Amino acid sequence: MAQHGPRLVVPIDVTKKPREQKLPLHNRWHPDIPPVAEVRVGEVFRVEMVDFSGGGITKEYTAEDIKFSDQFVVHYLSGPIRVVDEDGPAKPGDLLAVEICNLGALPGDEWGFTAIFDRENGGGFLTDHFPCATKAIWYFEGIYAYSPHIPGVRFPGLTHPGIIGTAPSMELLNIWNERERELEENGLKSLKLCEVLHSRPLANLPSTKGCLLGKIEEGSREWEKMANEAARTIPGRENGGNCDIKNLSRGSKIYLPVFVEGANFSTGDMHFSQGDGEVSFCGAIEMSGFLELKCEIIRGGMKEYLTPMGPTPLHVNPIFEIGPVEPRFSEWLVFEGISVDESGRQHYLDASVAYKRAVLNAIDYLSKFGYSKEQVYLLLSCCPCEGRISGIVDAPNAVATLAIPTAIFDQDIRPKANKLPIGPRVVRNPDIPRCTYDGNLPITKNLSATGS
Amino acid sequence: MAQHGPRLVVPIDVTKKPREQKLPLHNRWHPDIPPVAEVRVGEVFRVEMVDFSGGGITKEYTAEDIKFSDQFVVHYLSGPIRVVDEDGPAKPGDLLAVEICNLGALPGDEWGFTAIFDRENGGGFLTDHFPCATKAIWYFEGIYAYSPHIPGVRFPGLTHPGIIGTAPSMELLNIWNERERELEENGLKSLKLCEVLHSRPLANLPSTKGCLLGKIEEGSREWEKMANEAARTIPGRENGGNCDIKNLSRGSKIYLPVFVEGANFSTGDMHFSQGDGEVSFCGAIEMSGFLELKCEIIRGGMKEYLTPMGPTPLHVNPIFEIGPVEPRFSEWLVFEGISVDESGRQHYLDASVAYKRAVLNAIDYLSKFGYSKEQVYLLLSCCPCEGRISGIVDAPNAVATLAIPTAIFDQDIRPKANKLPIGPRVVRNPDIPRCTYDGNLPITKNLSATGS
Amino acid sequence: MAQHGPRLVVPIDVTKKPREQKLPLHNRWHPDIPPVAEVRVGEVFRVEMVDFSGGGITKEYTAEDIKFSDQFVVHYLSGPIRVVDEDGPAKPGDLLAVEICNLGALPGDEWGFTAIFDRENGGGFLTDHFPCATKAIWYFEGIYAYSPHIPGVRFPGLTHPGIIGTAPSMELLNIWNERERELEENGLKSLKLCEVLHSRPLANLPSTKGCLLGKIEEGSREWEKMANEAARTIPGRENGGNCDIKNLSRGSKIYLPVFVEGANFSTGDMHFSQGDGEVSFCGAIEMSGFLELKCEIIRGGMKEYLTPMGPTPLHVNPIFEIGPVEPRFSEWLVFEGISVDESGRQHYLDASVAYKRAVLNAIDYLSKFGYSKEQVYLLLSCCPCEGRISGIVDAPNAVATLAIPTAIFDQDIRPKANKLPIGPRVVRNPDIPRCTYDGNLPITKNLSATGS
Amino acid sequence: MAQHGPRLVVPIDVTKKPREQKLPLHNRWHPDIPPVAEVRVGEVFRVEMVDFSGGGITKEYTAEDIKFSDQFVVHYLSGPIRVVDEDGPAKPGDLLAVEICNLGALPGDEWGFTAIFDRENGGGFLTDHFPCATKAIWYFEGIYAYSPHIPGVRFPGLTHPGIIGTAPSMELLNIWNERERELEENGLKSLKLCEVLHSRPLANLPSTKGCLLGKIEEGSREWEKMANEAARTIPGRENGGNCDIKNLSRGSKIYLPVFVEGANFSTGDMHFSQGDGEVSFCGAIEMSGFLELKCEIIRGGMKEYLTPMGPTPLHVNPIFEIGPVEPRFSEWLVFEGISVDESGRQHYLDASVAYKRAVLNAIDYLSKFGYSKEQVYLLLSCCPCEGRISGIVDAPNAVATLAIPTAIFDQDIRPKANKLPIGPRVVRNPDIPRCTYDGNLPITKNLSATGS
Repeated sequence: MAQHGPRLVVPIDVTKKPREQKLPLHNRWHPDIPPVAEVRVGEVFRVEMVDFSGGGITKEYTAEDIKFSDQFVVHYLSGPIRVVDEDGPAKPGDLLAVEICNLGALPGDEWGFTAIFDRENGGGFLTDHFPCATKAIWYFEGIYAYSPHIPGVRFPGLTHPGIIGTAPSMELLNIWNERERELEENGLKSLKLCEVLHSRPLANLPSTKGCLLGKIEEGSREWEKMANEAARTIPGRENGGNCDIKNLSRGSKIYLPVFVEGANFSTGDMHFSQGDGEVSFCGAIEMSGFLELKCEIIRGGMKEYLTPMGPTPLHVNPIFEIGPVEPRFSEWLVFEGISVDESGRQHYLDASVAYKRAVLNAIDYLSKFGYSKEQVYLLLSCCPCEGRISGIVDAPNAVATLAIPTAIFDQDIRPKANKLPIGPRVVRNPDIPRCTYDGNLPITKNLSATGS
Repeated sequence: MAQHGPRLVVPIDVTKKPREQKLPLHNRWHPDIPPVAEVRVGEVFRVEMVDFSGGGITKEYTAEDIKFSDQFVVHYLSGPIRVVDEDGPAKPGDLLAVEICNLGALPGDEWGFTAIFDRENGGGFLTDHFPCATKAIWYFEGIYAYSPHIPGVRFPGLTHPGIIGTAPSMELLNIWNERERELEENGLKSLKLCEVLHSRPLANLPSTKGCLLGKIEEGSREWEKMANEAARTIPGRENGGNCDIKNLSRGSKIYLPVFVEGANFSTGDMHFSQGDGEVSFCGAIEMSGFLELKCEIIRGGMKEYLTPMGPTPLHVNPIFEIGPVEPRFSEWLVFEGISVDESGRQHYLDASVAYKRAVLNAIDYLSKFGYSKEQVYLLLSCCPCEGRISGIVDAPNAVATLAIPTAIFDQDIRPKANKLPIGPRVVRNPDIPRCTYDGNLPITKNLSATGS
Repeated sequence: MAQHGPRLVVPIDVTKKPREQKLPLHNRWHPDIPPVAEVRVGEVFRVEMVDFSGGGITKEYTAEDIKFSDQFVVHYLSGPIRVVDEDGPAKPGDLLAVEICNLGALPGDEWGFTAIFDRENGGGFLTDHFPCATKAIWYFEGIYAYSPHIPGVRFPGLTHPGIIGTAPSMELLNIWNERERELEENGLKSLKLCEVLHSRPLANLPSTKGCLLGKIEEGSREWEKMANEAARTIPGRENGGNCDIKNLSRGSKIYLPVFVEGANFSTGDMHFSQGDGEVSFCGAIEMSGFLELKCEIIRGGMKEYLTPMGPTPLHVNPIFEIGPVEPRFSEWLVFEGISVDESGRQHYLDASVAYKRAVLNAIDYLSKFGYSKEQVYLLLSCCPCEGRISGIVDAPNAVATLAIPTAIFDQDIRPKANKLPIGPRVVRNPDIPRCTYDGNLPITKNLSATGS
Repeated sequence: MAQHGPRLVVPIDVTKKPREQKLPLHNRWHPDIPPVAEVRVGEVFRVEMVDFSGGGITKEYTAEDIKFSDQFVVHYLSGPIRVVDEDGPAKPGDLLAVEICNLGALPGDEWGFTAIFDRENGGGFLTDHFPCATKAIWYFEGIYAYSPHIPGVRFPGLTHPGIIGTAPSMELLNIWNERERELEENGLKSLKLCEVLHSRPLANLPSTKGCLLGKIEEGSREWEKMANEAARTIPGRENGGNCDIKNLSRGSKIYLPVFVEGANFSTGDMHFSQGDGEVSFCGAIEMSGFLELKCEIIRGGMKEYLTPMGPTPLHVNPIFEIGPVEPRFSEWLVFEGISVDESGRQHYLDASVAYKRAVLNAIDYLSKFGYSKEQVYLLLSCCPCEGRISGIVDAPNAVATLAIPTAIFDQDIRPKANKLPIGPRVVRNPDIPRCTYDGNLPITKNLSATGS
């Protein structure tokens, strides 16, 4: 009798390295990476994936692997997967609806990590404040995660793939490469950048270094050509990609534009949980995992539903519906930030600056409850907190808010007239695994903060 | 026998002009505006307020009043209110906890408006796309609002005061004026601004024009001096102020820093409902209304709970707790945006640009369901939609999302393979009251959009 | 210019007695009670109402008024209200949709009470355990209620009218009187009753005592005749009536069958908050209040949508939709009960017995946290707890559950391995206002409980 | 390196029969059934289980297996599992806290069934209305279920174990047997039963027929003795057991009383989804599945937290906390029922009768939208609907409500003035697999219903 349940189309063996997996992985976007599997609309299928680093970052209690992590190999993706219906493969101009029927950790591999990259090797949203590589390990107990490195918190995961996207067409790929090269080359001088964002480089251009192109043999002529064109996976773009949207969880449905025949979508960078913004960059609870998916092709749907916002019909973005089983919290403590930076300088309706200040406010606040600031920075990267653009018109201040569910703590973190926090208030673990920062970039100090 | 219920400390008569109210209003922030009322911690009291324009914008079906609205008189505030406990008035360095026990429209005045300012008279987040003054009138049916100008939607309000803040100290006021003057004078050349934000001026500096300072007699010497120092109310700042946070609704509790004796907090700019970002600027459902409040003083709470983020101990921001009765939606359609602007130019982790693209995407999408784009722009300004900073680290693209509750529409707005929207799909009202745009600033066209 | 907002169709002056109100009240159901107001479909109108006792129960801190309360005058209702549309009045066979646009306490009267009736004067679900008359006073702070008699709890109200119903036809009224008289006369011997329900009488038959019939002059011949036919308002029935459904709150919409021309619906018995079951009988937070309503007539809707469940086409029940702004709780502690009674006797799939045991379990549990059992009994009657029929098929045990939102307490009430409750754990007020029980009915003791 | 993730303590092979499983199953409660596994507090472990029928009911599209199903073999349970901490095994008087960290279907077996038992072989809540055996098959797509037999609905599961309970002590077992025998023997004449509940027998007494006692060899002397004492698993009781509480899902935590050394808890009867009441008896979506659990022992917790409600200290019930990831619905259509039965007879505060009428009302209503009544009966048994005891004091009528989330349907099921349902309204499948009813018991007809 026929078995029920999803068909496994991309298997992963986590005891093996990325290059040794049964179906080859890839870590670039390119129209010519051949599909490794084909699925029909309506069928439920299972895609497994390594963690974004392909095992490069381990469960050891050290941050050395973070400090020296190879930024050229990220992110290892499963796919591409070709989608067909009774009329044949998806076609450019269609919309590919992908429903996430289920997802989770891989059996036997129920752990993850959250990290701060070294300021000179990736950085992050607050890299000028927190330049040292650090790492926290998380263990999963079903829907819950806890960390020996950030005691006193435990929360249900809003698990999701950090990356899901369709293959770009050559035309779209060229648009990406051109605009990102322009930014990389001229951005610092020509573009009026927000000066409080310190991660560098500005963009990550194509590189043969660490490049993996699925079935395309490494070192071959074709590989060489493609590797020099293929887009890095770090930013989200018109095809979806590394959008790091925490709400793409169980039961959600994403509508992706189709740029090449078959849609050829890929996915990876599984997150057990992530806060809005994923502020420490390696900031979700990163893990290996699986997705159970179901596809639908909406023929002609790009034109029907997506209006390009840019000079070509390819300048579109995915849309999605949120699923019905997100963790439910009823009490939130919310931090505000305005677009005035740490030096007191006034910026103009800059939501990034406002959000940076909101996050800094939250970190300082929570560090009063027995945590180091790095612990809180990691926690706000990965717990189910909400980052909102509350006001974007009241010149000159954008107002951003960061809402934290209070139920994830084992103590009452709300302000109190009697100043006594309620709860077990365990003596906290001294801190997280951490490296020294040996670079030369200046650190932003909070001049008016007292101690910490 | 004693009556129960809130004590009315600031009454408003909506048939009268702002200058004729029993207790004088003010529309600037200054430490020396005398309090108009005193309340004790623990008591529930009622503050009424005019709409932000003090009746300048009417319920007539025309946008003329919007086009020529006086930006110098906004926002008319009720207060200041002095807060005392058994140890006397609140003192600088304390934290003032204000609980919003209840709020709503004023009886007999159950209507509001949402508008787009003319590009040369205030503008808004998308003023380069929508330069014309427009206005929609909303009527309230208890918790619900509907508009004859945007048919086919009806939603419960997440009602809140757009403005609540404490009086700044002179030191803080000077900091504001200095940094905003610097921006206004040098911003366009010195600061690396996001070039896709077109509202001007960059900041609104003190001005005697239209200035109202409560009990300080207009035209007096004191008034003259103060009017030249007093901060405009448009941006949110360290004292709270015009944060336009939609979640400051029934049952929420805001912790405000105290900068002057008595705290002297003021409130106004009541919103029946607002979406995150309040994108059209005059974008909430603006109304007159009332708050029922209860205060608590946390002595020494600024130092205990708020860490300054800037060069002085005054560089703090309020924090708040969300209330338990926000409208509840389970189904959301979400639009993504990345930090690539309408010309195709790549920006660097710019959440404002990403959010602009998400909003533009949503407007174009929803305009396929029988609405004009201005109708949708107004709707997204005032309906309970959520604007999130989803990714802020994946260089060069920030990813912002705009989540819209599908239940506010009388038709199914989700993408469909058969392309047929489900629902009554009334023939929509042609459009909203609108003026011509007579200015000279260039309009941003979406080159690849077809029609509409 | 026209005012906006609801038209006041039934005004109440709470300083006056029920018989002195401008529009006469009624406390019986009868087809011939003349309407006091007429409303059109689509208009929003306001109905005010006295508390169910019409001021008979006061805000004094005593339970004497409860002990001797007059059960013949309840419930004072506002109405009947006649509903018309462009085709004339609602007609028998139509469905009347009533949307509750808003509701609340009357200004200046923001307080309520919860009580236990004396075992010989009304009783309640657990009258055999708690025979004494008691009373707790609640004060409202906007959406929140607190009581000096049950310290340590504060919660947002799920405010609703306990009673809303249409006038019965004479045929339906006869059905009611006949079946209730049969129960009253023969129930104890002929019907196989659940023996653990101790309230008596079994039913409350028509009585001229205390009868109020609106515009029908008291003592007149017509009044005499009608008073002897008119149904008491205590039970919910086919016309809706005293259903005491806590979810009929802001934004909900109830579909009522129409039995007489004009629908002639009445409403009253306002509750600031109530738990499922309203277990202490006078168990909601009873108050005066107002409703803002909007009606729609669904012509022929009874036949279209309601299937009679009984021997005549009149044996129907209302249906309703829940509103979008119910208080939101994410953490619940749940108590189970099975259909075995306090004596250990096995009942057969009896949900009433199972729920009684669940409530008793919850009372005993919570009394360990500094409360008397009467305090908890009152609290579970009026706080937003959920009573569910979890299993009704696993013979012989029905399983009922009672879910209590933990956030209403100022201490952590969950079981703990270290047995130390977390939280302020104030020394509780000794108890609530209470009378002696002077009757002769036996009291159910919990033989195995230790102390308390 | 150590693997992470739950330790598998009870494996199941669904291709094998219950008697062939590696660790023996049991289908009775008895203190002397030896544990099959031991777990330590704090560790996460995995328990797999067959469906309640152990494969007796198949995925064939026929109801024959339902009609002739063996009621003596239910329910096949996994366990007992002995729980120890550093002080040794759990002891009588302790409280065993079991957290459900995760749960789900078994890989490769992602399907389930919902059925109506034949009136003479099990029956159900409405067996007098629906006497025929029927069955619907459900297939799972991750969190969602759909059925070819009930088209037009799809919903996320609130998955849970129907049964989780600790082993009874001999003393408790004797109490059960005595009270159930008394009911079975004398109930129909001595107990005042609700006459509208037609399932028979009243109780299911111990029987050697079909009895499975884990490691106790079938047919042995010990087995014979135990089988004659061991309680059937059908009702929920003091030890938990078959409580069929739909909210015992992911993240919930149940506190079970401990009656024997080691606690020796067992679990089974996995439900993909169930409505409150599980009205058709075989009414959940029954499936095989797994639980991932974590235990804690609260020493002395029975006395500390549970108050017995009956003649002995053993008359207690479990309590539990609800988990944070239940499916979220915002729109509900609610049906009311009062304690007047289908013949028009008045009952006295009988919540079972009221709930029966609410369910009948809902069935008739929904059958107007293209479904047969049996389809709806099955659907209301298994979808996440809420059954509430709304009023239990307004003599003589209990009021029960049944709330149905409207989002599970592909059409708008709310009443409409224009009477036209909105949505695809597919031509529905004629019906579900069904048998004839060949028994002699009378059927309850709804005299006033027209047709259908």
